[in-house]
Amino acid sequence: MNHVALIAGMGPDAGADTLARFLRACRRELQAAGRPINDQAYPHHVLVQHPIADRSAALLQGGASPVPGLVGAVGVAKAAGARTLGIACNTAHFWHGELQALFPDLEILHIADETARAVHRSGARTCAVLATAATQRGGLFRRALAAHGLDTVAQSPGDEEAVHRAIFAIKAGRPEEGGPPLRAMLEQLLDRVDSVVLGCTELGLVIDADPFAGRVVDAASELANALAAKAYGTYPTHTSPSPQPTEQP
Amino acid sequence: MNHVALIAGMGPDAGADTLARFLRACRRELQAAGRPINDQAYPHHVLVQHPIADRSAALLQGGASPVPGLVGAVGVAKAAGARTLGIACNTAHFWHGELQALFPDLEILHIADETARAVHRSGARTCAVLATAATQRGGLFRRALAAHGLDTVAQSPGDEEAVHRAIFAIKAGRPEEGGPPLRAMLEQLLDRVDSVVLGCTELGLVIDADPFAGRVVDAASELANALAAKAYGTYPTHTSPSPQPTEQP
Repeated sequence: MNHVALIAGMGPDAGADTLARFLRACRRELQAAGRPINDQAYPHHVLVQHPIADRSAALLQGGASPVPGLVGAVGVAKAAGARTLGIACNTAHFWHGELQALFPDLEILHIADETARAVHRSGARTCAVLATAATQRGGLFRRALAAHGLDTVAQSPGDEEAVHRAIFAIKAGRPEEGGPPLRAMLEQLLDRVDSVVLGCTELGLVIDADPFAGRVVDAASELANALAAKAYGTYPTHTSPSPQPTEQP
Repeated sequence: MNHVALIAGMGPDAGADTLARFLRACRRELQAAGRPINDQAYPHHVLVQHPIADRSAALLQGGASPVPGLVGAVGVAKAAGARTLGIACNTAHFWHGELQALFPDLEILHIADETARAVHRSGARTCAVLATAATQRGGLFRRALAAHGLDTVAQSPGDEEAVHRAIFAIKAGRPEEGGPPLRAMLEQLLDRVDSVVLGCTELGLVIDADPFAGRVVDAASELANALAAKAYGTYPTHTSPSPQPTEQP
């Protein structure tokens, strides 16, 4: 089994939630292989959580760069023996290319790439994305989805701002404040498009994608699934295109 | 803030659950200090999950020792900069003294010690413990609780075996099988004693201690609380006795 890692802390609860999704994905891998589930059947993994500067503030307000924090965490994961990594934060993927270039011997999964493949597999034609304002304005998912021929419906600036505020309420320990507007927005979007991407790892803390039967794709789950497949050596060879490198907004 | 680590993988889901408890404890620390909750307010931490040999089989059936796996995981946590560690498995604490001696520059918390202090603080006089057969037969909690003047009511060998089987059903990915007998056993014990200790990290996956208002003490939560207090420098100076070193059953 391949040693893997999750770079977490963005936010910490979302990282722990992504870890739980990874472990569920590991159980599905074991079940698919007809192997028994026990403590010893899971791959080596580490979760590394360093305080990392706010990604949205860096992109939209010229705040401190998250790169030093990210590099430190990836370095710890590398030293721990991980060879494939997932970053449990969508907005952080604006620095994916920079991180990957700094660690050429590691494989750093791209959350939007994994998610776009899942949306494409679902047969959807039109999509919308719930995400931070920085993720939206930089087109992190719009580009990845376009590479698979998928159209992304834009939200109004007001709606985008409301989603962003709700995400930061969850980060501030107030999921009961962030959850209701996010669930209401999701329902509105599902009336307009085939598929809605939960493009921020905080969203899975207040929205369960499972009951929506494939119409809601949680990026955290897709990252977790890909990481488990890398760990067990079942990651598919993709024939579909990878999205273009993402520029910062 | 002190860098901390959780040694997980025993089982992996229980480790992720203990991490989530640690993050909740961090938020309580921040709230108590009047500090805002945001991604950057949490301490550096790593969760390390290596495949570690089954602790119960090692103690009761002469199976492979978990020590090499534990030492490897603690070594990774040390290399990552952690100075205080928690081990997210009660049965593994039969090797606590051996691990602590191998890493004299690290502080490894003792889950039964932390739990016994919490039971003592609750004002309980009589206790019972739900745990693996190895934890019960080795008296991991009986000794720790006795150091605080607390009596532990023994279970019948049949009940002990039923609890052990239910715990291993959870480890095998069948919480729906392990949960009902454990919850029934808990209710029976609460009729007989003041306080019931959930002395296996799997138990919190199927039993929520919160509604029992202090009468059910989850060892995973006590370990998580202690680790958060160590991270933020608020760990109390204890005047109550520490339990005696635990011998293996």
